[in-house]
Amino acid sequence: MTPPSHPSAAHYLALCGGVGGAKLALGLSHALPPGNLTIVVNNGDDFDYLGLTICPDLDTVTYTLANLAHPLQGWGRDEESWAAHAVQKQLQVEPWFQLGDKDLGLHLARRAMLDAGHSLSAVTTAITRAFGIGHRVSPMTDDPVRTLVDTDLGPLPFQDYFVRQRCAPVVRGLRYLGADAAQAAPALLAALGDRQLGGVIICPSNPYLSIDPILALPGVRDALRRLSAPVIAVAPIVGGSAIKGPTAKIMRELGLDPSAQAVARHYGDLLDGYVIDAADWPAARESGANLSLLPADIVMRTLDDKIRLARCCLDFANALANQPTTGN
Amino acid sequence: MTPPSHPSAAHYLALCGGVGGAKLALGLSHALPPGNLTIVVNNGDDFDYLGLTICPDLDTVTYTLANLAHPLQGWGRDEESWAAHAVQKQLQVEPWFQLGDKDLGLHLARRAMLDAGHSLSAVTTAITRAFGIGHRVSPMTDDPVRTLVDTDLGPLPFQDYFVRQRCAPVVRGLRYLGADAAQAAPALLAALGDRQLGGVIICPSNPYLSIDPILALPGVRDALRRLSAPVIAVAPIVGGSAIKGPTAKIMRELGLDPSAQAVARHYGDLLDGYVIDAADWPAARESGANLSLLPADIVMRTLDDKIRLARCCLDFANALANQPTTGN
Repeated sequence: MTPPSHPSAAHYLALCGGVGGAKLALGLSHALPPGNLTIVVNNGDDFDYLGLTICPDLDTVTYTLANLAHPLQGWGRDEESWAAHAVQKQLQVEPWFQLGDKDLGLHLARRAMLDAGHSLSAVTTAITRAFGIGHRVSPMTDDPVRTLVDTDLGPLPFQDYFVRQRCAPVVRGLRYLGADAAQAAPALLAALGDRQLGGVIICPSNPYLSIDPILALPGVRDALRRLSAPVIAVAPIVGGSAIKGPTAKIMRELGLDPSAQAVARHYGDLLDGYVIDAADWPAARESGANLSLLPADIVMRTLDDKIRLARCCLDFANALANQPTTGN
Repeated sequence: MTPPSHPSAAHYLALCGGVGGAKLALGLSHALPPGNLTIVVNNGDDFDYLGLTICPDLDTVTYTLANLAHPLQGWGRDEESWAAHAVQKQLQVEPWFQLGDKDLGLHLARRAMLDAGHSLSAVTTAITRAFGIGHRVSPMTDDPVRTLVDTDLGPLPFQDYFVRQRCAPVVRGLRYLGADAAQAAPALLAALGDRQLGGVIICPSNPYLSIDPILALPGVRDALRRLSAPVIAVAPIVGGSAIKGPTAKIMRELGLDPSAQAVARHYGDLLDGYVIDAADWPAARESGANLSLLPADIVMRTLDDKIRLARCCLDFANALANQPTTGN
């Protein structure tokens, strides 16, 4: 692997959700040494299930970085076994949320650590380190925030909408219950206050379901606006379609054009730079937004794709950091 | 199999705890057709663990009757897998209570059914039926009762005493927290009020840890005393030693002679008949208790042993039921 092209002293903060974000987080973890990258993960979709606290996005990022993620299904572990699941089915309890045996082991360990009084941040650090992950992975908050999806069927807790209803209901709006009273996690606060911060990378996750819950935490949006380091995002939309998940569907239901530019407008003045697919470059340039654009191949299939896009993001952030200020 | 030697219309009630009691319960389930046997199981040693409700005695009876129990270790399932356990250990959480993957499946199913508002009785019926058990298995109560062991180390919740401390602390006394306010389970009340009840069999379980919690439920002891059907017990002690578990140790610590006769004295006027080992017959006869005694081989090693002892108990109960009343 070639050495990273970023200033070695700089630190970076990645904000991400589940599968799409985890891909870029994995790329960043290969492009940056441990200690130079903090990955802050949405936990507005956490929920309690059969006595366990399930943290889908945190676990997706953890399994992805530990090289334990299932390569295709978008959740859970590779080489999983299903003995507990089979007994539940034998006992006529059809689990609506599928937990493999190894995944259960993580949830039970998290339950034990939370019951012992440790914060979700501390638990996440313990889990990621035990899995051999050197980079810092943190929930966005240690306080309960729960994403509620307002739909044509009424308000639905996130997992009801996402797993039970498979994103079929029409979205009218989103709420992040508890965000007002929640505190950003220590790792997020530390990164935002880090004088060596070289840039913030908003991963190509669903803006409404994965990134907005992080931005809804008190002070986070303002801190990102005030940063001297550049904030860049990678578009989660290519040619009018979401790369993964229901982003485009939700945007249409919210009356928005499902385009990379519309996502940039949604993030608004938070962004200093925006990485879009080459196919969306002409339309985005014409939109005339006061935003530095970088065309790149943003569809990540292989590990090399992820590392290459990560390096593009870091180089872009460094270029933005070194350009003359425009008085913004 | 030869036909059972009991009047076919009679119903029987077995009271039992874990391993020792489950052996006789298994024998009774072979000796009696479904519909003629209710097995009521101690659940004073239930406890909450990592969000799950663990019912050790109920599960031991269930696994034993379903032919799923581990043949040697005295808890858990045979042909178990340990993927979840291995991940907990990898994550530096050393589980003090071991849960195999298949066992976890049962606990998760029970959690789901309890969370849906079903009583522990209803959940137990659903679980035992799904495992192909025809006989009625019931917890002693659907209300929380928790056995507390007063020891030289202070009061210990049952599982702390039994699993964590491996029965090492010296027992000063026992308390059944919540028993005063608990209601006997519907199956126990139905059996005690059943006009076709042919007998009650107290299985060779620990009197203090497994049977007394059942007897502590309001009305149960009085109902057993008033029954016209005979109440018999099988001694859990042979030649001064407990067949299984800490019965003899606890009796010594409580200042009692660890003998079959002392257990009979403990049950007192509840008993009409007592099944003891042939080796204990001379001493028991000399004790002069006003109690019908039956010597038998009460150490159950094989399934045939269990069925044979079950038939002895049923025949004994029938003989006692048919003998002229003594004005007791």
